[in-house]
Amino acid sequence: MLIILKKGADEKEVARLLENIKQSGYTYARANEGGADMIELEGAPSYFQLDFFRSFAPVKKVVTSFEYREKVYRAGGKKDTSVTVKGRRIGGGNIELIAGPCSVESYEQTERIAEKLSKMGIRFFRGGAYKPRTSPYSFQGLNENGLKILSRIAKKYDMVIVTELLDVRNIDAVCEHADIIQIGTRNANNYALLKEVGKLKKPVLLKRGISSTIKEFLLSAEYIMCQGNSEVILCERGIRTFESEAYRTSLDITAVSVVKEVSHLPIIVDPSHSAGAWNLVERLSLASIAAGADGIMVEVHDRPQEALSDAGQSLKPEKLKPLIKKAAEVAECFGKTFMCSAAAGGRKENPSEKRRKIKSKKD
Amino acid sequence: MLIILKKGADEKEVARLLENIKQSGYTYARANEGGADMIELEGAPSYFQLDFFRSFAPVKKVVTSFEYREKVYRAGGKKDTSVTVKGRRIGGGNIELIAGPCSVESYEQTERIAEKLSKMGIRFFRGGAYKPRTSPYSFQGLNENGLKILSRIAKKYDMVIVTELLDVRNIDAVCEHADIIQIGTRNANNYALLKEVGKLKKPVLLKRGISSTIKEFLLSAEYIMCQGNSEVILCERGIRTFESEAYRTSLDITAVSVVKEVSHLPIIVDPSHSAGAWNLVERLSLASIAAGADGIMVEVHDRPQEALSDAGQSLKPEKLKPLIKKAAEVAECFGKTFMCSAAAGGRKENPSEKRRKIKSKKD
Amino acid sequence: MLIILKKGADEKEVARLLENIKQSGYTYARANEGGADMIELEGAPSYFQLDFFRSFAPVKKVVTSFEYREKVYRAGGKKDTSVTVKGRRIGGGNIELIAGPCSVESYEQTERIAEKLSKMGIRFFRGGAYKPRTSPYSFQGLNENGLKILSRIAKKYDMVIVTELLDVRNIDAVCEHADIIQIGTRNANNYALLKEVGKLKKPVLLKRGISSTIKEFLLSAEYIMCQGNSEVILCERGIRTFESEAYRTSLDITAVSVVKEVSHLPIIVDPSHSAGAWNLVERLSLASIAAGADGIMVEVHDRPQEALSDAGQSLKPEKLKPLIKKAAEVAECFGKTFMCSAAAGGRKENPSEKRRKIKSKKD
Amino acid sequence: MLIILKKGADEKEVARLLENIKQSGYTYARANEGGADMIELEGAPSYFQLDFFRSFAPVKKVVTSFEYREKVYRAGGKKDTSVTVKGRRIGGGNIELIAGPCSVESYEQTERIAEKLSKMGIRFFRGGAYKPRTSPYSFQGLNENGLKILSRIAKKYDMVIVTELLDVRNIDAVCEHADIIQIGTRNANNYALLKEVGKLKKPVLLKRGISSTIKEFLLSAEYIMCQGNSEVILCERGIRTFESEAYRTSLDITAVSVVKEVSHLPIIVDPSHSAGAWNLVERLSLASIAAGADGIMVEVHDRPQEALSDAGQSLKPEKLKPLIKKAAEVAECFGKTFMCSAAAGGRKENPSEKRRKIKSKKD
Repeated sequence: MLIILKKGADEKEVARLLENIKQSGYTYARANEGGADMIELEGAPSYFQLDFFRSFAPVKKVVTSFEYREKVYRAGGKKDTSVTVKGRRIGGGNIELIAGPCSVESYEQTERIAEKLSKMGIRFFRGGAYKPRTSPYSFQGLNENGLKILSRIAKKYDMVIVTELLDVRNIDAVCEHADIIQIGTRNANNYALLKEVGKLKKPVLLKRGISSTIKEFLLSAEYIMCQGNSEVILCERGIRTFESEAYRTSLDITAVSVVKEVSHLPIIVDPSHSAGAWNLVERLSLASIAAGADGIMVEVHDRPQEALSDAGQSLKPEKLKPLIKKAAEVAECFGKTFMCSAAAGGRKENPSEKRRKIKSKKD
Repeated sequence: MLIILKKGADEKEVARLLENIKQSGYTYARANEGGADMIELEGAPSYFQLDFFRSFAPVKKVVTSFEYREKVYRAGGKKDTSVTVKGRRIGGGNIELIAGPCSVESYEQTERIAEKLSKMGIRFFRGGAYKPRTSPYSFQGLNENGLKILSRIAKKYDMVIVTELLDVRNIDAVCEHADIIQIGTRNANNYALLKEVGKLKKPVLLKRGISSTIKEFLLSAEYIMCQGNSEVILCERGIRTFESEAYRTSLDITAVSVVKEVSHLPIIVDPSHSAGAWNLVERLSLASIAAGADGIMVEVHDRPQEALSDAGQSLKPEKLKPLIKKAAEVAECFGKTFMCSAAAGGRKENPSEKRRKIKSKKD
Repeated sequence: MLIILKKGADEKEVARLLENIKQSGYTYARANEGGADMIELEGAPSYFQLDFFRSFAPVKKVVTSFEYREKVYRAGGKKDTSVTVKGRRIGGGNIELIAGPCSVESYEQTERIAEKLSKMGIRFFRGGAYKPRTSPYSFQGLNENGLKILSRIAKKYDMVIVTELLDVRNIDAVCEHADIIQIGTRNANNYALLKEVGKLKKPVLLKRGISSTIKEFLLSAEYIMCQGNSEVILCERGIRTFESEAYRTSLDITAVSVVKEVSHLPIIVDPSHSAGAWNLVERLSLASIAAGADGIMVEVHDRPQEALSDAGQSLKPEKLKPLIKKAAEVAECFGKTFMCSAAAGGRKENPSEKRRKIKSKKD
Repeated sequence: MLIILKKGADEKEVARLLENIKQSGYTYARANEGGADMIELEGAPSYFQLDFFRSFAPVKKVVTSFEYREKVYRAGGKKDTSVTVKGRRIGGGNIELIAGPCSVESYEQTERIAEKLSKMGIRFFRGGAYKPRTSPYSFQGLNENGLKILSRIAKKYDMVIVTELLDVRNIDAVCEHADIIQIGTRNANNYALLKEVGKLKKPVLLKRGISSTIKEFLLSAEYIMCQGNSEVILCERGIRTFESEAYRTSLDITAVSVVKEVSHLPIIVDPSHSAGAWNLVERLSLASIAAGADGIMVEVHDRPQEALSDAGQSLKPEKLKPLIKKAAEVAECFGKTFMCSAAAGGRKENPSEKRRKIKSKKD
């Protein structure tokens, strides 16, 4: 960052600015070139600190590369965008719950779970047909048969299907049966795949890579958006840190708050994969809503002991009830609507929705 | 973990158990010794998974070292403990806000801030007299003069003083002036210091080391407790991960939930140091409360541009007001009381407090 | 790990064993079931510690899941394997240098570099035709034209071509022109791609994911091997840690030593991408050889200032000369041959090669 | 970093520079202020890249805060310094081996080991009298009795004693008995302790904090040096990363190379604590020497099964012999002397030593 000082700035005030730069953890060099008095601030101050430095009296202007020209950023103060599928909107005050089993194992298993979820007002159903597994000898999913099962479920219970795409060669099959295409954490940097889903007219749920920085995460979304598809839902799912014994990954709650600031895209949280333990799912879901998340995606299984994958982190459907109740309350603190609760209770939309619609007509 | 199987267990049920072990990400070996049929589960399943494995039909018992014998754990289902100072209690349904400047810079600066905070109902005042700084050339604090300033503030505004102890040789001075002794993240494994504060009759606020595992964090508390001092308040303050550009550290929200499960001690969160940017403090505070935290510690400065340290992450006192309002609402969702809000509003204690008192008389 | 004790084991010796378990950082539980006296050691002791625990007097046997049944491991003490391409062998005492530009930018650029490398005795040429870039707006490679350029180079200079495959749909094109298929770090968990290259009859150079554990790294190799292709060369390329300012990633030298112990596959090191700075390449190359690496892959550009990617980490060809000289010396300390040096000097193979050949005829 | 361009620089050359900045992974902003044409390069380019950017034709000068004013840096191209104790020098071409048990357990144990090491030509003996342990219930060392044992060993075998100081209150006792004061990884940011050892006239062996960045590591050394003590030996001992199952920490070999570039202080490596497994010690020692380390510190125990701490990572003395032999060979590749080998073989100093002495007389 380059700080251009006003001509004849008060040296005492400059000293205060320099002290603040140091206090903020940066080093600097002062330069005078062509008559311009400047401070070169070393290191990349975050987006949040630009205004802080601009606010000092001797500062004429701040020169920085942080222009956020990519589509994923809030260039020019762009407002929140949201993604609407089958009349249901994620983002913009609506908090959605996406639930379902890790894997589609059979029609019976899938239907049993879908029925229970449906009764709770849940409209977004997740389930894996193609499964990325660390070991090649683990269950790899039912593939196209799994997709067909999901399709039947969607029709029978009027649900929105979220399922993962692993391979560009399956793109037609997945598009035929799914409403939202999920890109998993292992493929967060599979740019060939990102480009392809960028050409679709379907919403994409993009998980953060397990060790992607915020910048990389957003640039993965940019790979999709720059191909023309702006229906991207981001998903924080825990990052890999030094702690791997007490929980599988560390839910990066700060990322949720930061992404809400710098990007206009909706962001949801997957507490199930993040923690790897069902006991932690409720707490992390509520924390995510408080941090600003636009949705929660949880793994649910009615018979975890029979699950072919992720048994330990799957909630039983009945455990969802207290989660939904609390989530609705926390959402309300922020003037937002936890949609499945509202649906179950007969409410259709959040309080700000009406105003929004009226306003958007004018835009 | 060693799973002892029942004699004559149904092999189909055993196969299901084995499948579940694999699905949970563990490997195993089966053994038969002295007639006992056993499954050796490799890797350390977390506390949360023991019951899951116990629940399978063929399981006779589970043998594990997870006995949680240390005082810091909930041995035998021990209930939440809380820490009471000057009649104010942290934990047990009371959520406290600790606020104040990073450093005590002068009596005037400290008093200005304390007065503002006091008017908001805040009773816990933080401020550093001894400052641990990465560079030896940075401001190192006012030392004993800083402590004396804190003492005057405490008296004038009837506040509880939280300040950091860096050096065993300053223990008497700090004890004379402080109500709660803070051990900073850099000294989280300074066992000589931990042992000394373990001998005190003062509460200790122990910050997690920036790369301490949960186990190490709790064992640092054990260093204090095993010397006789059980008045320990844990503090999550962000962990060091691969992401260091978008925010200083990653607030480990999962740690808050996990510590609440395995330990009976109160745990608070420091969102200011964690994020390193004041804009993120409110969101992270609210998320922490939703995750189960018993308190929040935030850095506040009325003139951040003049601050001698941590300017960029200090909230202005007026920014605390919306935080307090929201925090009180979120706390209420969990049946808890955000104390400074209650104090300002004339409420003295949380709804469950009265019951607790009556109950505790019987104990 | 389950330790079965001998009947009537001396309790003093058992106590010593228990003390050692604790000293090694593990917790344990003792169990007696069906008359068998056992110690359940919690946590997963590494491969290296099994023998240590077995060596105690009271130990009858150790039960563990560490069977290393996957093809990637040294099941049953399997000896080092090596990969031979166009008569050149990587592994088994031969240390190869793979060099070339990050990207194929034009025939002229590629040829200029290839000619220089060829004169130094270098036979393995790397160059990217398809480039995975963090930003979609960065140079993405010459694609099929790049492959054709590489083909011409290979013929003209009799070189072995190493180039990256990003997308299953390009597999035929890459196979037509390349001798070794590289799977990059971003696709280390792109299982669809791994399975496809597993069906080829071409050697695969598999880079470790930037945050893959050793186990995950080897299971990625297993995805290739289980499809029938056992010609896999592993490549350590630096891991993502908390340090990202002083160097791009941390070269995980321990991984090299560990992989040499547990797997029979050859492993090479990419110091250029790991460090992200050409000044560090020589030192890291030599350290890698000392740690047991079977090869080094470095980025070279004769005009770094014109490079379209990775300029800052590309060595000029003349900087390779001292690297090669030192590498040959260090290799010799271990009885190995640094092949390009030997080729330039007229030597054809390493001292142990002849013996090996004679021996392998007997096998 | 601020790049000031020459007046009338060729725009095509400027474009090439800008492309290179992007290729190097940086973003930039161009500014024109007071007639000066400038490029503000965002992010902190490493020390190694300054010359790269300076080398472009249109660049007039580069303004950066990287002045390396601290004593720990090579300000003004400062040459390597070394630390001499009892006539033995670490650094400057001499590679030392420091060996000994983790803990001093008894006079007999210590003497047995010291005798064996002494016969191998080893003159630097390590052993802990005060032990920092993660659990308060683990063996905490023999304290002052341990120091006395070390003193007797030093006299009997003419050895240099390296032992850890944990607590400022033990500083006199440790100074009385030790030749080199070790500051352990847990106290790397215990500034009170660092300042105190900075006032001594004794060499200090400073271990890197388990998650200290290079900058923080060097600033910890600065805490010592700014008090007047410039006899600091740095020690890389492995960093905490996401991989914790295959080995305890990841030896940061890149750090060794980087520290050798930016600092004049000698740096050694502790492969025993880094890997946590004795089988890896030899390989990592040799790699460290190849990377430029000035010494190696290894844990040795003749009866690991009886050791009260760190048994699994302790080498038996006889395992040191092949390590020493190989280390001497690798050192020779770099024109350096592995001192204990030279001592055992009758050589006193390395080839460049004589020249250095003659040269230093002239300085």
